[in-house]
Amino acid sequence: MQRRALLTLTAGASLLATGCASSRTTSQAPAAQVQGTGDLGVVIERAKGALTLINTSTRQAIGRVEGLGDLSHASVVFSRDARYAFVFGRDGGLTRVDILAQRITHRVMQAGNSIGGAISADGSLVVAQNYTPGGIKVFNAATLELLADVPATMPNGERSRVVGLADLPQQRFIYSLFDAGAICIADCSDPRQPRITTLENIGKQPYDALLSPNGRTYIAGLFGEDGLAMVDLWAAQPQARRILGGYGRGEQPLPVYKMPHLRGWAIAGNHAYLPAIGRHEVLIVDTTTWQEVGRIPVAGQPVFVMARPDGRQVWVNFSVPDYHRVQVIDTPSQQVVQTIEPGKAVLHMEFTPRGESVWISCRDSNQVQVFDTHTRQLQASLDVDAPSGIFFTARAQRMGF
Amino acid sequence: MQRRALLTLTAGASLLATGCASSRTTSQAPAAQVQGTGDLGVVIERAKGALTLINTSTRQAIGRVEGLGDLSHASVVFSRDARYAFVFGRDGGLTRVDILAQRITHRVMQAGNSIGGAISADGSLVVAQNYTPGGIKVFNAATLELLADVPATMPNGERSRVVGLADLPQQRFIYSLFDAGAICIADCSDPRQPRITTLENIGKQPYDALLSPNGRTYIAGLFGEDGLAMVDLWAAQPQARRILGGYGRGEQPLPVYKMPHLRGWAIAGNHAYLPAIGRHEVLIVDTTTWQEVGRIPVAGQPVFVMARPDGRQVWVNFSVPDYHRVQVIDTPSQQVVQTIEPGKAVLHMEFTPRGESVWISCRDSNQVQVFDTHTRQLQASLDVDAPSGIFFTARAQRMGF
Repeated sequence: MQRRALLTLTAGASLLATGCASSRTTSQAPAAQVQGTGDLGVVIERAKGALTLINTSTRQAIGRVEGLGDLSHASVVFSRDARYAFVFGRDGGLTRVDILAQRITHRVMQAGNSIGGAISADGSLVVAQNYTPGGIKVFNAATLELLADVPATMPNGERSRVVGLADLPQQRFIYSLFDAGAICIADCSDPRQPRITTLENIGKQPYDALLSPNGRTYIAGLFGEDGLAMVDLWAAQPQARRILGGYGRGEQPLPVYKMPHLRGWAIAGNHAYLPAIGRHEVLIVDTTTWQEVGRIPVAGQPVFVMARPDGRQVWVNFSVPDYHRVQVIDTPSQQVVQTIEPGKAVLHMEFTPRGESVWISCRDSNQVQVFDTHTRQLQASLDVDAPSGIFFTARAQRMGF
Repeated sequence: MQRRALLTLTAGASLLATGCASSRTTSQAPAAQVQGTGDLGVVIERAKGALTLINTSTRQAIGRVEGLGDLSHASVVFSRDARYAFVFGRDGGLTRVDILAQRITHRVMQAGNSIGGAISADGSLVVAQNYTPGGIKVFNAATLELLADVPATMPNGERSRVVGLADLPQQRFIYSLFDAGAICIADCSDPRQPRITTLENIGKQPYDALLSPNGRTYIAGLFGEDGLAMVDLWAAQPQARRILGGYGRGEQPLPVYKMPHLRGWAIAGNHAYLPAIGRHEVLIVDTTTWQEVGRIPVAGQPVFVMARPDGRQVWVNFSVPDYHRVQVIDTPSQQVVQTIEPGKAVLHMEFTPRGESVWISCRDSNQVQVFDTHTRQLQASLDVDAPSGIFFTARAQRMGF
């Protein structure tokens, strides 16, 4: 109880409820539990602006936290100790949630429109990427004190929207400027005075990006032209170069129902598995040459194409009208080995860190379904209101989120 | 306090002390802390039979647990929730330590001579590999109840010593029989009745083994002949084949001061970095062909050759008389970029999960030294009595340990 008294709320919106089905509103948080945090996680309730807290060992909901604002496009990173979730809401809200105490500890409205963030490897800095006003903001992870506001101002004086933020070693962060066609690296080793390196002319309208699991390769998707921009971050002088000229929305006469998330790209072994844009295909790309080496027919327009942690399977979900299906690709044979129908409106998937299970959010069924990835049998089913993103604390151990 | 009362000691040797320098003996454990467990770890005190508990965020010792028996060659795995450490002692003791409560919860003497163990991905089973009597034993991870004793009996009726144990998906475990020249896979999906598949004639005297980070490739070192035995576990019918015929003790006229740990092998990108046996060299092997493609001269006979999690660096320590040095290899250029002298008798190294720091145990200096892997500056120095193995809870998230 002593520890709870030390927590400080920096915003009033700390409504909190326990239990997973009820929405009981109370100002009294449950007593924080002594428990390990290696097998915990959060599920975004996009309609209610809440988190369902879950345990991947028992495969159960363990609690619920409300009051996080607009979570219609939310993402989450975790503190180094795997206790706190930092939730970036679409409305610019940044909320720090104590998973053990099941309550909000800090909350700030840091922008008008935001789509995500990252945390430094040492756990000291949280950075948000913003649409309105454009730019990034750097926060003290322990207090959410604003340390720096980096506006991403373009030559014409306007601010660019920022996408594709990822952490790099040594308190650096990389991100892309949608309106400026640039990639920036912010060195926050002096967090109140970030030093920005900008790579210009990387291509038109980068709309999302990913960092390879080893942190070496940053790839930004281009909305305004075919192809992608790639940066080798291990080079002495990193530069952007164009890859996969045939990849992109401009090539396709088909309607695109939803731009795929690049974070959904799977890198398994020497291949990357990419959602084709507008086509019912997953592309296979050699990560040495960055040339396309094959295509796998799938059941719809892929949205997330995610590798099981061991890389032996890739799981794919789809945009409307095929978003009731999930397909499993066996990577050694590069074939679809199973089609699952876990529920209505599959929005996201998350693997347990050693890959034995996958958790799938089915928004319009109000369910999260847990499958054994080996047998593809249903292991558990959780009632969650309009679930979208699923995030496990093991992300705290990995770079590029 | 209520939770502590539920803990059951199955052995009396639960002497416990708090603080890192003192060895205060008490039967009263400190109150368990509400804290995240993602940034915790343990350091083996090999002479005292104790653990120093550490926090990698604060880079401090947070407690100490005694009474673990002979830890002269100990290893550790972690529960799925990153709360409990399972410590396998040389004397056959298996001890379950609650890191949050800083006390032993269960302890069994399960063999006369043992060198390690593993835990299943679902966290339910702990398996020990034993020398005397030879074989493996399967335990309930929550209670240390013995579920199965698999004796590894040879055609002559004697028991083989077991080495190179690693967990595989679906409650399976793989290990090698030193005396039988075989590799076994135990399917423990019915943990009281494991089903054993044996690959015969894999080579003479496998003395240690490793599993690749993706769980696909199992490699056993051979003491009795040149070369190694490799199994592709993704094959429909896994078989052992011989690789690296020029690698092994038989080739070398040089004295070998200490057989390198195969667990120390680094796999980074498409290359494996191996300690040459008896030579002052690190071998570079292409993991596609398993052919040697290069050698890097180093400062002594390498013992551990460990990749930083991103694979950009490989850190090497050495056997006597060169065990006061550690060298850092830059993998893109395949050159030694720095030599560090962290203390006397460097025995082990452990990287933080995102690779920003490395912890190094210096037995004869009674110190654990923490270095920034980018700047190679000393970040912290901890007083620990005769430290050897260092194990962080992030191992709970990875297979092959």
